[in-house]
Amino acid sequence: MEELVALCKRRGFIFQSSEIYGGIQGVYDFGPLGVELKNNIKLSWWSSMVYENDNIEGLDASILSNPLVLRYSGHEDTFSDPMVDCKECKSRFRADSIENKCPKCGSMDLTEPRPFNLMFKTSVGPIEDENNFAYLRPETAQQIFTNYKNVVDSTSRSVPFGIAQIGKAFRNEITPRNFIFRVREFEQMELEYFVKPGEDEESLDSWVQKRLDWWEKQGVPTDQLELYEVPMDELAHYSKRTVDIMYKFPHGTEELEGIANRTDFDLGSHSKKQDELNIKASVKQNKDSNSKLGAQSDGGDWFVPFVIEPSAGVERGFLAILNEAYTEEEVEENKRRVVLKLKPHLSPIKAAVIPLKKNNKDIVDLSTKIKDGLQSLALGRVVLENTGNIGKGYRRHDEIGTPTCITIDFDSLENETVTVRDRDTMNQERIKIKELQNYFIKSIK
Amino acid sequence: MEELVALCKRRGFIFQSSEIYGGIQGVYDFGPLGVELKNNIKLSWWSSMVYENDNIEGLDASILSNPLVLRYSGHEDTFSDPMVDCKECKSRFRADSIENKCPKCGSMDLTEPRPFNLMFKTSVGPIEDENNFAYLRPETAQQIFTNYKNVVDSTSRSVPFGIAQIGKAFRNEITPRNFIFRVREFEQMELEYFVKPGEDEESLDSWVQKRLDWWEKQGVPTDQLELYEVPMDELAHYSKRTVDIMYKFPHGTEELEGIANRTDFDLGSHSKKQDELNIKASVKQNKDSNSKLGAQSDGGDWFVPFVIEPSAGVERGFLAILNEAYTEEEVEENKRRVVLKLKPHLSPIKAAVIPLKKNNKDIVDLSTKIKDGLQSLALGRVVLENTGNIGKGYRRHDEIGTPTCITIDFDSLENETVTVRDRDTMNQERIKIKELQNYFIKSIK
Repeated sequence: MEELVALCKRRGFIFQSSEIYGGIQGVYDFGPLGVELKNNIKLSWWSSMVYENDNIEGLDASILSNPLVLRYSGHEDTFSDPMVDCKECKSRFRADSIENKCPKCGSMDLTEPRPFNLMFKTSVGPIEDENNFAYLRPETAQQIFTNYKNVVDSTSRSVPFGIAQIGKAFRNEITPRNFIFRVREFEQMELEYFVKPGEDEESLDSWVQKRLDWWEKQGVPTDQLELYEVPMDELAHYSKRTVDIMYKFPHGTEELEGIANRTDFDLGSHSKKQDELNIKASVKQNKDSNSKLGAQSDGGDWFVPFVIEPSAGVERGFLAILNEAYTEEEVEENKRRVVLKLKPHLSPIKAAVIPLKKNNKDIVDLSTKIKDGLQSLALGRVVLENTGNIGKGYRRHDEIGTPTCITIDFDSLENETVTVRDRDTMNQERIKIKELQNYFIKSIK
Repeated sequence: MEELVALCKRRGFIFQSSEIYGGIQGVYDFGPLGVELKNNIKLSWWSSMVYENDNIEGLDASILSNPLVLRYSGHEDTFSDPMVDCKECKSRFRADSIENKCPKCGSMDLTEPRPFNLMFKTSVGPIEDENNFAYLRPETAQQIFTNYKNVVDSTSRSVPFGIAQIGKAFRNEITPRNFIFRVREFEQMELEYFVKPGEDEESLDSWVQKRLDWWEKQGVPTDQLELYEVPMDELAHYSKRTVDIMYKFPHGTEELEGIANRTDFDLGSHSKKQDELNIKASVKQNKDSNSKLGAQSDGGDWFVPFVIEPSAGVERGFLAILNEAYTEEEVEENKRRVVLKLKPHLSPIKAAVIPLKKNNKDIVDLSTKIKDGLQSLALGRVVLENTGNIGKGYRRHDEIGTPTCITIDFDSLENETVTVRDRDTMNQERIKIKELQNYFIKSIK
């Protein structure tokens, strides 16, 4: 883990947020390479959901949420950790982290555990009072449910269909930890897939398999993953069954993604006229919703679709992908290299064009032309690496996972050829400039 | 404006956030088409900044910010509107919106105007008190400045170079208004371009021109834009000169983007050892920063780079682009159509594949195969539009700006040809299936 964290900082993947002021706990910034890797992961997920399925629509809803959304979702009541206060020194701790004695002052005069809600609140509008606040959403899912009817009406979808969303969520974790694994601000990639009641169990199984396949394509092979069947007494309040995809992170085996059967709890909870909908889950009576969130069978009976939810964290995926890609290997006797063997579609930089001489105008001009040509293919970031040190360029691009380095030298000016070097094999070959675009496209796809 | 708002809701571009609970003022959700258009605008900006320039790096920093960041940036002191309270009915109003009399109860017993800070605050950690809070960033720019040294160290950049960021920002606007124009949660696309002092004025002029060119490519032509030289007494506290790019929105001519010369104010404000840096701007003494944010000239003298900042709002761009694209035209006598003449790279859907008969397996299978083939080119979303009504499909896709409709019929099964229809000219032509991919690529690029 330490090597990974050091690499992330040194090469510009991840920085501590507000670092020049001592940081802000559990919050991180993504640097020049981190933002590209993160965007590539998100695009890969989005493509696999919205583009490659004919019945999945996208959504990008707000972070600020009307409190009623989180009241009826159950978050106001249940999204909390039990906390204990020391009556002596006034410190506060998670109840499960201490044993009858304050870890700060040693006092045994502690309060009973009390629930501490993990949602961030903020005042909205000019007057600060109990009635004017919003929550920062603790998950992206809820806005998918509240937009259910808007999406159905504007796209004419009927079950089975899904709504996918990528976006930030916020949780006031008591003890953020393990680098970007448990943080207070993070991104989720969530699909809510709506099916007829009775088709939910089969759908869950099929989504577990699809998600394993997707992780495999991102370089996290199935044999590095474990499926964890969440026991009944650990299930979230909305869930009938949840399968967690577990990954062996550097700090231990933990959840990478959860696939939950949320039943008809959410749409049922957010709906008006609940008694007309044959809701199966136990839901709070809703007096505020202005929308009936159900569907009608061919026979005209109302039902509330069941929801299968594959929910993955971008940061956790980022960490797993980096961890799998990170390789130290001996290249010659007593000579080692660090290489990130990222899948090319995830690489922050797709190719580096390296002029042999940094001050030779003809070589640099040709390099720039080649860079612009590859960049115009819109396959991701291509850089001109004009340091005049080819060996150093190779080392840097191995470490950040660039699939191809292209070196332009004096021969390139004469015979229109360049040297291409493959990251993983380190093989170098000489190819014609006019064949370079095809070589490049093949290297990524 | 009303037609645009209605289209946005009907077709799934934009919904009111938390609508089923009466909404949340000044906050919107982007639906299935809105998220694609928004992502396309962002990608186009990102490409023009990070990919097409060899000296611009990307960043994706956190929304939660250490309060010290916003203290030294000047936001705690100056980012406010003057407010007046009615002593009678306790209502609160923007001072400039009322005239000596409460608009609610008519009382003239009002307080003097008092500053109301527009930043959202939230408690962080288990204990709610004055010392444990964060701001939701009111602009993305500040995290670029606080990460200045991290980016320089990890990428070996020296001036001139830039750092680009796209992300959400939050402002507790007193009176959000004009649809998505003035909202409380929005996205910014900001570049901070660092130059040597003395090269700032020329750089600003050149960025104004580059940004006009970019808007033109997004379908907002320069002759629809006006440059507004912000007068000295209206300049922000950090600015030496600001040029606003103004667009004639449906509700009036207002700022689409601002290009500001922020001088060395920001880096100078966030730096330690300020007295060694020859800072030209007037900055608050910084006792908290742990980082020296300067550069050294060839002669070894320290200086703080000047910053040119082109800052555009994604939602405002979205609105301007939609407004320019929105066209009603007569297609035959007494027959009108609505068409969104979006630039193809921005279209939410790049092509619609429409089977002539929705229940004919051969036709639908061929349509699916064609859809998958076009989708795999990774040029954006392609949909299978299986409603069995070609005329309706054309109307729908005109309204949402899809550049090409491809119809598959019985002849397609026989002779491997399809009908392609162009959105703008409505011309239809018959082409071979094997030529379709090239036709499609050309239609978008």
